[in-house]
Amino acid sequence: MLVLGIDPGTRHLGYGLIKEEAGILSATDYGSLNLSPSLPIEQRLHQIHSHILNMINMFNPSEMAVEEPFLGTGNNQFVGPAFAIGQAQAAVLIAAASNNLPIFRYAPTKIKSVIANHGQATKEQVKSMIILSLSLTVEPDSTDASDALAAALCHIRQRDLETILNRQIKP
Amino acid sequence: MLVLGIDPGTRHLGYGLIKEEAGILSATDYGSLNLSPSLPIEQRLHQIHSHILNMINMFNPSEMAVEEPFLGTGNNQFVGPAFAIGQAQAAVLIAAASNNLPIFRYAPTKIKSVIANHGQATKEQVKSMIILSLSLTVEPDSTDASDALAAALCHIRQRDLETILNRQIKP
Repeated sequence: MLVLGIDPGTRHLGYGLIKEEAGILSATDYGSLNLSPSLPIEQRLHQIHSHILNMINMFNPSEMAVEEPFLGTGNNQFVGPAFAIGQAQAAVLIAAASNNLPIFRYAPTKIKSVIANHGQATKEQVKSMIILSLSLTVEPDSTDASDALAAALCHIRQRDLETILNRQIKP
Repeated sequence: MLVLGIDPGTRHLGYGLIKEEAGILSATDYGSLNLSPSLPIEQRLHQIHSHILNMINMFNPSEMAVEEPFLGTGNNQFVGPAFAIGQAQAAVLIAAASNNLPIFRYAPTKIKSVIANHGQATKEQVKSMIILSLSLTVEPDSTDASDALAAALCHIRQRDLETILNRQIKP
């Protein structure tokens, strides 16, 4: 199984590919796409869309895991970011849908609790756990990249868990 | 000049094409794309993206006018809709950017004040003014469609105004 993890944003987008073969995990590719804020939003979205299309064509992942933002409650400070993340996520989803790539969404707290055993873990803690779990020799260039790998790894662990549970239910 | 107006949404997306030739305005095409809420969001975004690409290829508009949402202040009730409109707008912008179509954004209050002389005009009032201004014989099927035509017409009037002002400045 090859999973493409994405941490969407209109300025920084993290991506990470994790391969699981016979229980062995390895990071195939990971990094971040850093887009100039001086570029019009449509050019940035076009770049995100093209980049994801390229990754899908190049690596042919079987599934995609996307970090779904927490939209906030109690005040409106998340409205602007929600709009921007919605835009970035759409560029990613359109690229996946046009290639019939199944998409799975995970809340940040879910990813953190699966990866770092704590829903309120910091991005640096998640990054450390990712380096350890995948035995990375090259440190991710940003927490966007490690967050994307974390989304992919969270998905693989959920999958494994479901497989084990299904085996127990149907012996 | 042929302007494609868009009122974006992930459930209902309005579109409208207005041609201006020698000062004569005519609506080339208009309608709404109604997407089933039971479809996964990625399938809806993919449909929006494909529909806009088709319209650009079919009619070859020279410019695009998009209604830009008001993101709200003072409470968080607009966060969910902002995220969804951001996604729908992204699908439209990516289609435009991949065809190098210039994009112009207008706030709803701007469109209403240009079309109906009042920033707080209702959608029905805007629809009535659109039917009158474009001498439509077939009523738009929804206020999404009339809002899209209103975005296009707002853009054409702004353009005309700028042309007149430029003429006065440089006689």
